[in-house]
Amino acid sequence: MRNLTLLTDLYQLTMMNGYFKENVHDDIVVFDMFFRKNPSNGGYTIVCGIEQLVEYINNLKFEDDDISYLKSLNMFDDTFLEFLREFKFTGDIYAVEEGTVMFPNEPVIRVKSPLYQAQLIETTLLNIVNFQSLIATKASRVCFAAGSDPVLEFGLRRAQGPDAGIYGARAAVIGGCSGTANVLAGKMFNIPVIGTHAHSWVQKFDSELEAFKAYANTYPNKTLLLVDTYDVLNSGMPNAIKVFKQLKDKGFKPLGVRIDSGDMEYLSKEIRSMLDEAGFYDASIVASNDLDEYKILELKSSGAKINSWGVGTKLITSSDCPALGGVYKLCAVEENNKLIPKIKISEDPEKITNPGFKNVVRIYNKYNKAEADLIILEDEVIDESKELTIFHPIYTWKKKTFKNFTAKRLLKPLFINGKCVYEKQDIMKIRQFVKDELDTLWPQYRRITSPEEYKVDLSEKLWTLKNNMINEMRKK
Amino acid sequence: MRNLTLLTDLYQLTMMNGYFKENVHDDIVVFDMFFRKNPSNGGYTIVCGIEQLVEYINNLKFEDDDISYLKSLNMFDDTFLEFLREFKFTGDIYAVEEGTVMFPNEPVIRVKSPLYQAQLIETTLLNIVNFQSLIATKASRVCFAAGSDPVLEFGLRRAQGPDAGIYGARAAVIGGCSGTANVLAGKMFNIPVIGTHAHSWVQKFDSELEAFKAYANTYPNKTLLLVDTYDVLNSGMPNAIKVFKQLKDKGFKPLGVRIDSGDMEYLSKEIRSMLDEAGFYDASIVASNDLDEYKILELKSSGAKINSWGVGTKLITSSDCPALGGVYKLCAVEENNKLIPKIKISEDPEKITNPGFKNVVRIYNKYNKAEADLIILEDEVIDESKELTIFHPIYTWKKKTFKNFTAKRLLKPLFINGKCVYEKQDIMKIRQFVKDELDTLWPQYRRITSPEEYKVDLSEKLWTLKNNMINEMRKK
Repeated sequence: MRNLTLLTDLYQLTMMNGYFKENVHDDIVVFDMFFRKNPSNGGYTIVCGIEQLVEYINNLKFEDDDISYLKSLNMFDDTFLEFLREFKFTGDIYAVEEGTVMFPNEPVIRVKSPLYQAQLIETTLLNIVNFQSLIATKASRVCFAAGSDPVLEFGLRRAQGPDAGIYGARAAVIGGCSGTANVLAGKMFNIPVIGTHAHSWVQKFDSELEAFKAYANTYPNKTLLLVDTYDVLNSGMPNAIKVFKQLKDKGFKPLGVRIDSGDMEYLSKEIRSMLDEAGFYDASIVASNDLDEYKILELKSSGAKINSWGVGTKLITSSDCPALGGVYKLCAVEENNKLIPKIKISEDPEKITNPGFKNVVRIYNKYNKAEADLIILEDEVIDESKELTIFHPIYTWKKKTFKNFTAKRLLKPLFINGKCVYEKQDIMKIRQFVKDELDTLWPQYRRITSPEEYKVDLSEKLWTLKNNMINEMRKK
Repeated sequence: MRNLTLLTDLYQLTMMNGYFKENVHDDIVVFDMFFRKNPSNGGYTIVCGIEQLVEYINNLKFEDDDISYLKSLNMFDDTFLEFLREFKFTGDIYAVEEGTVMFPNEPVIRVKSPLYQAQLIETTLLNIVNFQSLIATKASRVCFAAGSDPVLEFGLRRAQGPDAGIYGARAAVIGGCSGTANVLAGKMFNIPVIGTHAHSWVQKFDSELEAFKAYANTYPNKTLLLVDTYDVLNSGMPNAIKVFKQLKDKGFKPLGVRIDSGDMEYLSKEIRSMLDEAGFYDASIVASNDLDEYKILELKSSGAKINSWGVGTKLITSSDCPALGGVYKLCAVEENNKLIPKIKISEDPEKITNPGFKNVVRIYNKYNKAEADLIILEDEVIDESKELTIFHPIYTWKKKTFKNFTAKRLLKPLFINGKCVYEKQDIMKIRQFVKDELDTLWPQYRRITSPEEYKVDLSEKLWTLKNNMINEMRKK
């Protein structure tokens, strides 16, 4: 892991310097990381990137050349720069478990630490979690559209730089992809890698048939042939079937074919007939060409005979929504050993923050379906033995009462007093956790377009605190 | 620089293994990198990322743990894996100068090397150059909209991972931004960094006025105040002006204010009046909130009084077009010491590649305006002393004749026989080069929406070669 200590906005450092000068840098503060909208107008967001966040925090250290660089900017006091040499994160970070399904305005990560520390880490915390959550969410949408078919992540060449390819592949697998073409991601995260051959393989040989034969010769057990270099139905498929028959004669079972251009609906149906006619009922048809959840839904509904989906650019960049707008807002400041709630008012009601030191509780019915989330103050306890009535934070007459429920607190510690208590998870286990999480959602929240909005309410105590603070602010 | 040798698609390695088995891995081949469409439906693309491409090639090396990982996949022969240990790039790479303005279908990078080497580097070459070119191009569009106003890159928290933030900031400055908030990018590339304070600074103090005073106290020479934490016109601006007056009394000149929400047109006009009324005619108004070239154009045309633009998410992700679709296609194979042209045919005429070992020539008139580009075969020479007639590759009756022109060959060596001949450039010099490049374009090619299409023709020799090859292929 690289040292990313200077990967921050300059204003974090100018503020840290200012706080240091005002001698308030050590004041304990609480920041919440949350987002205001699900990506792609979807019904949920999968939180991802927690492991990399932990690594980033564990590696924080201002090296000599970092200090020299900051000094060269002529903006910082020498005493402040000397102070930075000793920088170490000493606070608490709580976060939801990696792979948790979350909803707008809920605290996803909560940082409680000396002010200067909380400020430094804001930008990279957001960078890491915004991106991986975006891609995990996109992948889960694509996989939902593909149903039980495997989805393969093919986007490295169009990813926004090396990290986007590497961590995007990680997030895509967590979100549900069966594997990635990215070898380095495979090595780093121990996730399945897949890949066969490109058009250039076919061009390199004197004929398509020779190219296919050479491929089958190298990988007799794993022969998947790209059939669209010249002409799918008149050249690619007849040649592929010839080679498949030879493989069969030798006792091998061909895997199938891939198409990367043309009319996928028509071609896949024709290819299926040709494969079936030749007796290759089990041979797969892999499609890859500018796919996303919308195109896959459409191809599926039109009866396209595709068994496996290679998804590139539109997944790795989340092209219809290339950023999750996660933010990091001050919600409390410690004074005389007590956390005083803070709020940010805005003309835009949706931008008013939830004040105080908070947690989130998810309410499940007896079938383990998630019914609603409740943002609470950390010191509140939900009594599962009693009825629980929650209400909409704006349309307060919209109420719902639960009996026979279980309540799960979602924020769990990553760091306590600077000590890392996070245990690294196996990625395939996180992937399974995501599947389980998604299974707790009613289908209307998973719908790809126009999903139903999941209930996220405030506890009565938090709602009252917030409204009192808004009213006081408006009076000023 | 990290070792990114395994940052490649698995199929590159399966093909390399196959070529090795067929004993054709050492055959010399030529690949072109080019793109088929300018980003954001624009009129041009700025090529960026050449320096990182060179670093990547220079650092290629399969380490022991890479080999062990590949072995664990059970797909590769041991002799092949041993062969990889000795991997070193030994070929030629030619590319346009970093910052060059390029157009669809022109070779941007040309790799001539043993087949297995050319194959390995495809994915990361594309990853690096696609992303940085995308962002440099987007930045140039945003800066064009902003006219002579400075544009600042603020996108790190929404960038697609750390590299996207770091190399995106580099590309944004090359494309025309005046600076970035990203401190690590500032350190790595020696580019200007900027930053003041966030809303949390204001929230941390007991009042906005105290927060502003504390900021001015720390940075009396660089006081730029964020005025929208509570209420821009009724609180932020009156408080800022109080602090500005105190600074003025002490002999300092305040820089100005920043707004990050609300109606930018209305607010900026009101803010300008308030600043002017108080005598702060030189104080700047910086705006930042979901800006891009389209919003800036609109604000400018409505007379908004904004002097400086902080652009975040929509620049660093190129949100309306989050990928440049650069591709890497085989165009020649050496046989008996002669390069034999190769072509990829497609039902879609736009996807048919240009065969052969090529270069690009740009034709300038005597005022140094670029008039057209001509893709030629490498052995062709354009005689500037004669008339030159070029023709459209499809509508061949569309012709244009040049006299009194200069012709510049665009592809220049980065590597010759594996030896790096690239000299690292100062980023601010590349930025200036981009400005000069854009100055060679007539304004109709720079228009943000519906630009005129720049002429890219094929030399008669290349056109004839291509058409003969297509006809031969169709006959088969």
